[in-house]
Amino acid sequence: MRKDYVVGVDIGGQTAKIGIVSRGGNILVRKVISTKYNEADEFIDLLCVSIRGMAADIGLENINGVGVGAPDGNYYTGDIVEATNLMWAKGKTIHFANEVSKMLGGMPVTITNDANAAAIGEMKYGAAKKMKNFIEITLGTGVGSGIVVDGKLVYGHDGFAGELGHTCAVRGGRECGCGQKGCLETYCSATGVARTALEMLSKSKVPSLLHGMQEITSKDVFDAAEKGDKLAKDIFEYTGKIMGEKFADFIPFSAPEAIILFGGLTHAKDYFMKQLVDSMNENVVFLWKGKVKVLVSALNESDAAILGASALAW
Amino acid sequence: MRKDYVVGVDIGGQTAKIGIVSRGGNILVRKVISTKYNEADEFIDLLCVSIRGMAADIGLENINGVGVGAPDGNYYTGDIVEATNLMWAKGKTIHFANEVSKMLGGMPVTITNDANAAAIGEMKYGAAKKMKNFIEITLGTGVGSGIVVDGKLVYGHDGFAGELGHTCAVRGGRECGCGQKGCLETYCSATGVARTALEMLSKSKVPSLLHGMQEITSKDVFDAAEKGDKLAKDIFEYTGKIMGEKFADFIPFSAPEAIILFGGLTHAKDYFMKQLVDSMNENVVFLWKGKVKVLVSALNESDAAILGASALAW
Repeated sequence: MRKDYVVGVDIGGQTAKIGIVSRGGNILVRKVISTKYNEADEFIDLLCVSIRGMAADIGLENINGVGVGAPDGNYYTGDIVEATNLMWAKGKTIHFANEVSKMLGGMPVTITNDANAAAIGEMKYGAAKKMKNFIEITLGTGVGSGIVVDGKLVYGHDGFAGELGHTCAVRGGRECGCGQKGCLETYCSATGVARTALEMLSKSKVPSLLHGMQEITSKDVFDAAEKGDKLAKDIFEYTGKIMGEKFADFIPFSAPEAIILFGGLTHAKDYFMKQLVDSMNENVVFLWKGKVKVLVSALNESDAAILGASALAW
Repeated sequence: MRKDYVVGVDIGGQTAKIGIVSRGGNILVRKVISTKYNEADEFIDLLCVSIRGMAADIGLENINGVGVGAPDGNYYTGDIVEATNLMWAKGKTIHFANEVSKMLGGMPVTITNDANAAAIGEMKYGAAKKMKNFIEITLGTGVGSGIVVDGKLVYGHDGFAGELGHTCAVRGGRECGCGQKGCLETYCSATGVARTALEMLSKSKVPSLLHGMQEITSKDVFDAAEKGDKLAKDIFEYTGKIMGEKFADFIPFSAPEAIILFGGLTHAKDYFMKQLVDSMNENVVFLWKGKVKVLVSALNESDAAILGASALAW
């Protein structure tokens, strides 16, 4: 029997977004639930009850499967492994796909990390529709990546491939939550931008709207840049420069047609895109100078993760 | 008709090695010809005459195809593109596969770069026989790489993927022949080792067999290390440290089961392997600490390139 629907689930540190998606990529029903539970069972119960409720009209028998994008989700094992951003998966291995499948009468459940889900969504519905080789970079609280080679997502030997946020941008640089130093994520995520702001503010006497703030977020820096603040603009330019240096290192690996940026930080693209592209082309070996496109995701941000995750289930 | 033989051709800056190879990977006939011609036509003529001669006993009709490993060989187009090490291909695009095929009566000819050919050889006959995800690093005059993901070589959008020798090891570091600065190749190739030797000698007053030499090669450094020379050992340890730092950056891309070293410099492995592995595990994100094997190629060096190239032709 041809089943015409799938379920896409995007799990984040605060909430999970659930959608029932048609073959054409239309989200028919949406629901948001909390992920702030202490025990995995509590969350999984709520998730499965929600899916059953959302599918009541369509009928569970018309659903082809569930695709899940989650931090530290492993495609091969179906597990969520030591996800520091999920209270119920911190330091633990949760057999997530298996558990959800059991509670949904054996329905196939596929899981991958959130950046991989975004890459799949981009390929099926977004800026990478006709591409076979590209890299999706997610710029949010952290920096994630999904790498597509010859039309397929790269999972690697253990299912964890594509952790470009934890390659080294600055040798011996900023401390990262992962335990290493100088990771790309510590410079080019939303929190990385805030760290750059604090560093630059401590050194600069140039007047800036950012001086004197108790706490600074990347949103504050963006708002200041929008008002013409020179230091705020410098912060984004520095971010773009570092990103470009690392992109120049990613390109020789897989020779992508494009690198596609996704996530909250892309709102500030006008302030870092030129520096990013210049720095990338300056640092990349001659074979690819001026040849690799840097694009911004064509996916609606709030739907992308659901669509990407759902695409796993076809 | 089942054809039982292929031709493998390994093109280098000085010579090309040609072999007729059976399905089992036995090299039946070998020949070495010069590659030092000014015009591509001259070399292609000689190559094709040689292949016809070598195949006389077997019969050209029993040969399935020709596989070629060549610097800057492009798998998609069959061209050799601006190969600085080949007099007849410097600054030019040579439609190599096409020309050779024409002269051999339309026989299929497949080309790729030499490091990719080594990776294919490793997968079919060497240390990567049962692996689906690994990275082959060739340590010769330069540093090359062939990346295998899910059992397939990564060619990327344009066919040039896998140029890890030209990722940045030291920001603003040594000048590279490619025009960039700080490329891995400038530190971890045979010439890189010689450059490290010159740098260290100019700074060090420690007695060393290397002091006072007119010219230093990586072989000189190896010979000195074999005699217990402290500075020579330091040179290799530094080489291993830099290699490990970069390997730590390659792993998050494709999560390989192993990184396999191939080429002349591996003879000195006892002097850099420990530093390489330590530095890799120190710098890689926790997911892969202690998990990725670093192996030395199991291919006979003089046959590997022929075997790898020949495997392309099956």
